[in-house]
Amino acid sequence: MLPPADQALVSAVLGPPGPAQRRAIAKTITLLESSRDDHRRRADEVLNTLLPHSGRSFRLGISGVPGVGKSTFIEGLGLYLIGQGHRVAVLAIDPSSSVSGGSILGDKTRMEQLSVHEQAFIRPSPASGTLGGVAERTRESMLVAEAAGYDVVIVETVGVGQSETAVSGMTDLFVLLQLPNAGDDLQAIKKGVMELADLVVINKADLDEAAATRARAQITSALRLFGHHGNPAHASHAVDGAPVIWQPQVLQLSALKGQGLPEFWAAVSRFRELQAAAGRLAERRRTQDQAWMWERIEAGLKSRFRQHPAVREALPEIHTQVRAGTLAASVAARRLLDLLN
Amino acid sequence: MLPPADQALVSAVLGPPGPAQRRAIAKTITLLESSRDDHRRRADEVLNTLLPHSGRSFRLGISGVPGVGKSTFIEGLGLYLIGQGHRVAVLAIDPSSSVSGGSILGDKTRMEQLSVHEQAFIRPSPASGTLGGVAERTRESMLVAEAAGYDVVIVETVGVGQSETAVSGMTDLFVLLQLPNAGDDLQAIKKGVMELADLVVINKADLDEAAATRARAQITSALRLFGHHGNPAHASHAVDGAPVIWQPQVLQLSALKGQGLPEFWAAVSRFRELQAAAGRLAERRRTQDQAWMWERIEAGLKSRFRQHPAVREALPEIHTQVRAGTLAASVAARRLLDLLN
Repeated sequence: MLPPADQALVSAVLGPPGPAQRRAIAKTITLLESSRDDHRRRADEVLNTLLPHSGRSFRLGISGVPGVGKSTFIEGLGLYLIGQGHRVAVLAIDPSSSVSGGSILGDKTRMEQLSVHEQAFIRPSPASGTLGGVAERTRESMLVAEAAGYDVVIVETVGVGQSETAVSGMTDLFVLLQLPNAGDDLQAIKKGVMELADLVVINKADLDEAAATRARAQITSALRLFGHHGNPAHASHAVDGAPVIWQPQVLQLSALKGQGLPEFWAAVSRFRELQAAAGRLAERRRTQDQAWMWERIEAGLKSRFRQHPAVREALPEIHTQVRAGTLAASVAARRLLDLLN
Repeated sequence: MLPPADQALVSAVLGPPGPAQRRAIAKTITLLESSRDDHRRRADEVLNTLLPHSGRSFRLGISGVPGVGKSTFIEGLGLYLIGQGHRVAVLAIDPSSSVSGGSILGDKTRMEQLSVHEQAFIRPSPASGTLGGVAERTRESMLVAEAAGYDVVIVETVGVGQSETAVSGMTDLFVLLQLPNAGDDLQAIKKGVMELADLVVINKADLDEAAATRARAQITSALRLFGHHGNPAHASHAVDGAPVIWQPQVLQLSALKGQGLPEFWAAVSRFRELQAAAGRLAERRRTQDQAWMWERIEAGLKSRFRQHPAVREALPEIHTQVRAGTLAASVAARRLLDLLN
């Protein structure tokens, strides 16, 4: 059972929308983000109490390089969805935030109207720790926002590789924002990121329509060629015998001018219906939960390993020998593991 | 110091080419592959003694789906290289071998001429264990073959995803073999595999030259679009400030008719020279060694974790709760880790 203070917190999160709920959400997330052990234990209990009330949102992951217009897109989309009767939470994973002190969403003026809207909840990226730790706290914040009744959760990240995998691993649909000059500006697309995308959106399409159309054709063809056989959302016959039910799509829009947002949301809704009908939305989440549990176990085991006194003493020298080529990597691993006995 | 029997083994591996050396290599690899602890300890010592003599080969990874003509390609390439004065070792990682009893290279008649050539050494995939364990033994076998003076090591795998990452992680250059109908037969390309390729080879190009040319154009464009920014061998300005020195190439050939092999090897040599001149070949290997050490440590930690009595007892129930959505994945991970204390 929860202590009375935490029970009150849970009740407020589950209570009616308004300033009290908003404060309770913020307070719960602060508890989750604390590095104190007693806070962490309390947060775990709070989280487990909220868990049965979570999960009733659509989780949308969004990535793109700086300058692609993510904030404008999310603000436009958020306001559009609120207009449709939704409540929208915006969270972020910014792997650079431990250095910069939290760049994504840290400056709320970037989403001026959405950030003050009472149907929206915006929370900047947790500002410190490893990517795994930051992702964990964002993942848990998402559960809190869901328990509070936000039925669309948007998780934003910047286009820097690993963080996209984390966001794709906690959302129902992953969107990659691109500029119209994809054909010219190849460096915008990082290894593996395109393959995570369920939808590719060419933003600022109005700036250069010819380029946007060219980019759309190029990306569509590349997506077809590279396939998506590892992604259960669009698994192919070849892999698991299940039919292909979603081919990643490429859309053009202009977030600044508000053009294309209804079409974007229609595509999202189509994806959602197809996946839900096939039972894949629930399965994707179960798979994500399991993968996440193991990801955190592995991170925990590795961190304990590095902190083990005998390992700490031996690691630098063994590491040097491996780099110098005087000790085989596999032998080094066995020697270090033997130190745990 | 090694016991006399193992010292004799090492001397024979390092000795002149011939039947005695060949037997010693095979015996050493058998020792590496043994699951007995005392064998493993002896193998580690043998490996460390051989290690300073290893590394003087070019390591070529080759993958492609069944039917693409890998055996014919490797046999043709191996014989061509022997004709140029090289000694060629062919190893394999077959993740299905624990089921099938070793399909790749198991049937030596697939490389009829190469398998009996005295300048070639062919070893089938280790036949049992996890992919990580199979990869480890292949990696160590590579070091033994190098110590014996084989100056080209080819590591073959089938196109089934994870095993390609393992092969790419232990070779200097990774080649993906494709059929000419890449545009039609999209399922041939698995998620993430194309991005590992330094060279893509369209085999059996003579069967349908128009299709081969079309596939070459498509793959070239997709490779350009998807970029290779995570691969240090072709890192871009955008990532680390180092210049792009290698754009993945697409070649056409016919292994069966022996067409295109000299051009293929010329491309490999160009890659090798460019990378070596930039110091990236040595750096790639150092990075691989380090990554491999950590990969094995993590596998070892996870296996110990799973075997821990308290974890074994609690895991099934916790696992069920996570899948049922009644326990948050992150809380589950912390509970399980706490059992280790």
